[in-house]
Amino acid sequence: MRWFLPKDEGFLAIFDEATGNIVAAVELFCQLLRDGAGRASAVDKLKELEHQGDRYTHQALAKLHTSFITPFDREDIHALVTKLDDILDAVDATAHRLLLYRVEQVPAKLVELADLLLASVREVQKAVLYLHDPKKHQEAMATCVEINRLENEADQLHRQALAELFLKARDAVEVIKLKDLYAFLEDATDRCEDVANIVETIMIKAS
Amino acid sequence: MRWFLPKDEGFLAIFDEATGNIVAAVELFCQLLRDGAGRASAVDKLKELEHQGDRYTHQALAKLHTSFITPFDREDIHALVTKLDDILDAVDATAHRLLLYRVEQVPAKLVELADLLLASVREVQKAVLYLHDPKKHQEAMATCVEINRLENEADQLHRQALAELFLKARDAVEVIKLKDLYAFLEDATDRCEDVANIVETIMIKAS
Amino acid sequence: MRWFLPKDEGFLAIFDEATGNIVAAVELFCQLLRDGAGRASAVDKLKELEHQGDRYTHQALAKLHTSFITPFDREDIHALVTKLDDILDAVDATAHRLLLYRVEQVPAKLVELADLLLASVREVQKAVLYLHDPKKHQEAMATCVEINRLENEADQLHRQALAELFLKARDAVEVIKLKDLYAFLEDATDRCEDVANIVETIMIKAS
Repeated sequence: MRWFLPKDEGFLAIFDEATGNIVAAVELFCQLLRDGAGRASAVDKLKELEHQGDRYTHQALAKLHTSFITPFDREDIHALVTKLDDILDAVDATAHRLLLYRVEQVPAKLVELADLLLASVREVQKAVLYLHDPKKHQEAMATCVEINRLENEADQLHRQALAELFLKARDAVEVIKLKDLYAFLEDATDRCEDVANIVETIMIKAS
Repeated sequence: MRWFLPKDEGFLAIFDEATGNIVAAVELFCQLLRDGAGRASAVDKLKELEHQGDRYTHQALAKLHTSFITPFDREDIHALVTKLDDILDAVDATAHRLLLYRVEQVPAKLVELADLLLASVREVQKAVLYLHDPKKHQEAMATCVEINRLENEADQLHRQALAELFLKARDAVEVIKLKDLYAFLEDATDRCEDVANIVETIMIKAS
Repeated sequence: MRWFLPKDEGFLAIFDEATGNIVAAVELFCQLLRDGAGRASAVDKLKELEHQGDRYTHQALAKLHTSFITPFDREDIHALVTKLDDILDAVDATAHRLLLYRVEQVPAKLVELADLLLASVREVQKAVLYLHDPKKHQEAMATCVEINRLENEADQLHRQALAELFLKARDAVEVIKLKDLYAFLEDATDRCEDVANIVETIMIKAS
């Protein structure tokens, strides 16, 4: 893993590093959900990835404010950077709450939701990569449609998970804890959809 | 109900369709709160209205990105479209949660809040209609003041509802469920206030 | 306290009044947390400060829409005004919920979080004051770094408070109430960080 970018890289290079970092973080998150024993150290490692994400965010914003010309509209770059950061923050928050709430039995539906999020951030990585080449308009659009489909699927799954939770939870405190975890993951998936919408906007403007 | 707009309609026509759709959705929502028997099928119908709203959103954003000139500032059109979509999403989410949480006894305060939201979206529809005519500056402003007043009223009612809930609820799970429903409805009313602020901004710029 | 601003004041004067008002509100909030007896009347007084904040917001936005030239980019002024308003709204909401939830025993961690917020809004006041003088670039940046540090500290404290709450709370309803209060205060601290980011953006653009 590279922790520092050379100063002369362009926006697209920063975006690619940022999305690669997000995919690595969600892969780690999916593992730590399944591995109770190594969870605490994995949460620490995830925190490092979150800090690295903050550096990409800061680097991109500093570049945005000091660049006279930008490859896309400034507000689209700003929105893209912010939403990518939000994805990582939500994943990091979910992992921390998992420890903090001492959730021993991770429900199957939570693991399923995390797997959907992983599928979604991999599509986000692809969508952002297509920004390198305006001719990949069709491919980028197909990726955005897939991210929207995954968000709808996550939404359905979230509702099923809540229904199950309210039926089966042993007590109200368990409801509070798991409802919170589901909400953080749902939020991460929603931010992926936001990224898809921004990529779509950039592609439409470029066409 | 018309499901597809002719391609040459302008932004204002899309906004009017969108607000008409929102009013229909909130009317349906107010009915399904009062009618336990037909609730499940009404929630399905509401989902269709939400999908139709998504189409208006997509249509307006696509038009925004491909239009060289726009009747108002681009960022105001974007904000207006997004906030109208948020109102409908919040109403749809409240209806789904109502089913999912198996709330049999709908509290009177929830029905009152829904009625306030209906009053608010009807004002939103009027405010957006005034955008057709910059001379209706005074009328538009009065409508925006009324939306702000309704939001304050909803805020008061929300607080009373929470106080009542914490005093009377049979158990913590009931608190969790109803607190969630109140929060979604409050959010819908807040988004109406956002729309009022955007209409006010557009009117000030045009004057 | 001055309740009405002379009409010819500039944006910076309005920002200074707004941040002074926020500091006064958070000072009052820290007092009412410690003083159970005078709490109800202090919450009323806080509401007045929140209304005064609304007037500054409205005044700044009206000025923004009617000004041909502005000292900073319009979107930065808009964001700054909105985020300052959000800080005050979150503090007012926390105070109201405290009464509404009939929280008699305010946890020490909640008081600590409020003290961190007070430190943070005082830095916000300084950061906004530095906008008067582009030469104070270094000082402004140092203040923004300090606001970020305080936000991280508040984040840590929030997590400790939640861990303690889930361990020690007598029942689930108490968890619901205090978790809500912590979330509102955390939100206020996050909005201070947003203000720091906007000040940083303005300073970078001006340099």
